[in-house]
Amino acid sequence: MSNGDIFVGEVIGTGLLILFGAGVCAAVTLHRSKARAAGWVAIAFGWGLGVMAGAYTAAPLSGGHLNPAVTLGLAVDTGEWGKVPLYVAAQLTGAVLGAVLAYLVYFAQFRANADEEHAQPTLGIFATGPEVRSPAANVLTEVIATVALVLPILAFGRNAGIGVGQIPGQQAGIYGSGISILLVALLVVGIGLSLGGPTGYAINPARDLGPRIAHALLPIPRKGTSDWSYAWIPVAGPAVGGLLAGLIFNAAF
Amino acid sequence: MSNGDIFVGEVIGTGLLILFGAGVCAAVTLHRSKARAAGWVAIAFGWGLGVMAGAYTAAPLSGGHLNPAVTLGLAVDTGEWGKVPLYVAAQLTGAVLGAVLAYLVYFAQFRANADEEHAQPTLGIFATGPEVRSPAANVLTEVIATVALVLPILAFGRNAGIGVGQIPGQQAGIYGSGISILLVALLVVGIGLSLGGPTGYAINPARDLGPRIAHALLPIPRKGTSDWSYAWIPVAGPAVGGLLAGLIFNAAF
Amino acid sequence: MSNGDIFVGEVIGTGLLILFGAGVCAAVTLHRSKARAAGWVAIAFGWGLGVMAGAYTAAPLSGGHLNPAVTLGLAVDTGEWGKVPLYVAAQLTGAVLGAVLAYLVYFAQFRANADEEHAQPTLGIFATGPEVRSPAANVLTEVIATVALVLPILAFGRNAGIGVGQIPGQQAGIYGSGISILLVALLVVGIGLSLGGPTGYAINPARDLGPRIAHALLPIPRKGTSDWSYAWIPVAGPAVGGLLAGLIFNAAF
Amino acid sequence: MSNGDIFVGEVIGTGLLILFGAGVCAAVTLHRSKARAAGWVAIAFGWGLGVMAGAYTAAPLSGGHLNPAVTLGLAVDTGEWGKVPLYVAAQLTGAVLGAVLAYLVYFAQFRANADEEHAQPTLGIFATGPEVRSPAANVLTEVIATVALVLPILAFGRNAGIGVGQIPGQQAGIYGSGISILLVALLVVGIGLSLGGPTGYAINPARDLGPRIAHALLPIPRKGTSDWSYAWIPVAGPAVGGLLAGLIFNAAF
Repeated sequence: MSNGDIFVGEVIGTGLLILFGAGVCAAVTLHRSKARAAGWVAIAFGWGLGVMAGAYTAAPLSGGHLNPAVTLGLAVDTGEWGKVPLYVAAQLTGAVLGAVLAYLVYFAQFRANADEEHAQPTLGIFATGPEVRSPAANVLTEVIATVALVLPILAFGRNAGIGVGQIPGQQAGIYGSGISILLVALLVVGIGLSLGGPTGYAINPARDLGPRIAHALLPIPRKGTSDWSYAWIPVAGPAVGGLLAGLIFNAAF
Repeated sequence: MSNGDIFVGEVIGTGLLILFGAGVCAAVTLHRSKARAAGWVAIAFGWGLGVMAGAYTAAPLSGGHLNPAVTLGLAVDTGEWGKVPLYVAAQLTGAVLGAVLAYLVYFAQFRANADEEHAQPTLGIFATGPEVRSPAANVLTEVIATVALVLPILAFGRNAGIGVGQIPGQQAGIYGSGISILLVALLVVGIGLSLGGPTGYAINPARDLGPRIAHALLPIPRKGTSDWSYAWIPVAGPAVGGLLAGLIFNAAF
Repeated sequence: MSNGDIFVGEVIGTGLLILFGAGVCAAVTLHRSKARAAGWVAIAFGWGLGVMAGAYTAAPLSGGHLNPAVTLGLAVDTGEWGKVPLYVAAQLTGAVLGAVLAYLVYFAQFRANADEEHAQPTLGIFATGPEVRSPAANVLTEVIATVALVLPILAFGRNAGIGVGQIPGQQAGIYGSGISILLVALLVVGIGLSLGGPTGYAINPARDLGPRIAHALLPIPRKGTSDWSYAWIPVAGPAVGGLLAGLIFNAAF
Repeated sequence: MSNGDIFVGEVIGTGLLILFGAGVCAAVTLHRSKARAAGWVAIAFGWGLGVMAGAYTAAPLSGGHLNPAVTLGLAVDTGEWGKVPLYVAAQLTGAVLGAVLAYLVYFAQFRANADEEHAQPTLGIFATGPEVRSPAANVLTEVIATVALVLPILAFGRNAGIGVGQIPGQQAGIYGSGISILLVALLVVGIGLSLGGPTGYAINPARDLGPRIAHALLPIPRKGTSDWSYAWIPVAGPAVGGLLAGLIFNAAF
């Protein structure tokens, strides 16, 4: 994979992920949306299917990481760290762009929200936040939830028959073919349902930081705070979780 | 593929898609339905599984496009434009027929609806409409949502192992085998959940125009307006989105 | 496949189907169930996953039809009618047994239901019934919904790569391997969501008649009517639908 | 597979299963969770996707049983009983650890719960309990539900094409590759929806006993009873069900 392919693949893939993810949060939050109050099951499937859309699209170009925590976990496993900055930069760029696209999709809804007497706060559409603000507990939640994402992803690569039908002699990305990306997408649905309650499951530094930057920059009417004091937690927690998953994987497998 | 097979395949496939799609909208809308108020998750899965039913059924005959936006995106990619009118004509025909079938399935419910003091408007069962009427914003929503459909569909074809188990020497349709159609179906579930809030996600000119024609023609009691002033948006937006996805795909892959 | 294998396979498979299907109806209906009021999405997935459980289990023995309408559609396609009575007898036997098992799983709930001041009617847990009683409309609904089941099932067999990974030289059942049964299961989820509103989607003569017989025979306290006047519709409608799907398939493919 | 690999695989896999399963129960139960009141569909998918995460992760090391009932059913089928105690010990160990991890993920939520005037009882997050307390009925429910889990799992192994793409000459675990684990995961979703209403579907002795031990030991504020009088039922019922499934499988297949 060339550096250009990696960059383009991760920008497009992460952009699609955030378009779907921020999109579903807008869909269930904003009053003038047909999906308002569709609930947590909708949110979990929206994010998981965003992973599916983005990672299968990116896979032929970049392997479809879409997440610095995945990139870090793979680097621990393979020992190849040289392209980590390229992946992370592309993921963050894509995450900002995806958030802008989601804003454009719901442009009329954001305006209508601002016109209401009790406008909904908008940050939750873009970035995560804790139900109970407690840095130690919040970081711990994000670390464990990210291990529960990255450790299975690494282990999927050891299952015969998940990357089915690979063209002989052609190496797919680490989870770049067959049903493996579908499994990762469903894994993200499961993490949302099971582990998303306390902090909204960032489990991906780019997924949180990119849309938070977009929230701070976009001209969203009555948008409220971007809550930068919390922003380090959904970056540090998933980064630590990704590294930890790589270490556990290397020790156990 | 012969022209006859393409026509029959797209009529049957698009007919099944709209039967399921208009069906689920009737199911959650009409008062005398067991699924009334089943919510947005039901709608998103109903449409997505309609894609699954229709596209796997059509795939051996026509490749299973079911959507002029997909046909256009593929034409940009392959440069073969000759059969586009045939595909679009068949898709529109199938969409009208599918809407008639959905009407027949819910025949008694439509009659019961008309007998109620506050009859539900029926257009939303057949065609899309905006929550906030704003042509520029509505078109933009449909363009972006359609790119989020067609770009991944085109990229799926570059993944090894999705069209698994293909008979050697036999070329399947662009997404006509293996799990790739299942992925497209889940992609449509995701678009519904994430991007359907503002306009009801036409993302397919035939999906909107065909059932709107059926709504205008069918003897539905107290059916209300067919809202022709909006009808150009779910045709033009997805058409532009399909073309744009093809251009992005050609540039990036 | 021996006659004995076919009989055992269809009994076990249809038994599992009805155990899951009647089970989910009990789960959302009976007051002392943890899943009470879980809604139509739960019902649709419960029935669909029952198809998955039953058909994959039966497939190595009988091909996993589980439904006289499927058996009839396949007979029209293949011209082999000799084993149709055997399949149907086994399917009906399995459906009665599965309903008895579901009754046993919810034994304490049925008793608790009878003790309540306003006991729930219990027939809906076992057999289907119309929201609007209209024989012509109800039959039409069942015919169309069954075509929407059996036509795709027949077409799935023409897709390369769905019955993936077949052992060379070993013929699997018509949809007895790979992901094809999973697709049928999801198809049944879709039919439930989209076409189940008017009549509760029997789409399978054995699925309705078997549990209705069980309901009539079992000592369910305060069980209410078994509604035999309606019983011919969910038998005749799906039978006609299965035959019609076979004819359409033969004409179109 | 070495004994060490089996132990590590089953600990990690069962740990992930319980992390997701207890996690989703905490997510929908505790007041300060974003997923509170997400309902039974969320619970069923959370547990099923926990099976997916845990079993695919464990499969390369141990085959991914994660459940003494599965281990027992396989032992009846294969006649190999020697490693049953190793599997069961690892599964129970993993289940305790997974429950501790779920507790840590929801640490702040458990504390907030204790501070409320009407604190939620916490045992239901960890272990199962009956809606109607009736040992005979509760055991019967667990036996039938476990047969409905283990019999299909055994039958899945007889389907060509589920363990797709196996590397020739390399034997995967009994359901350790291809889509078979995904099917088991969806099977668990179905059992939850359909058969979970009366007792909360333990269907796995380790799934219930391990988290109940964790509940008894952990310093959860205002945690309430661990209900040891019920604890034998979700151990004995699933164990009997697993053995019975093995016997039925050997007789029928």
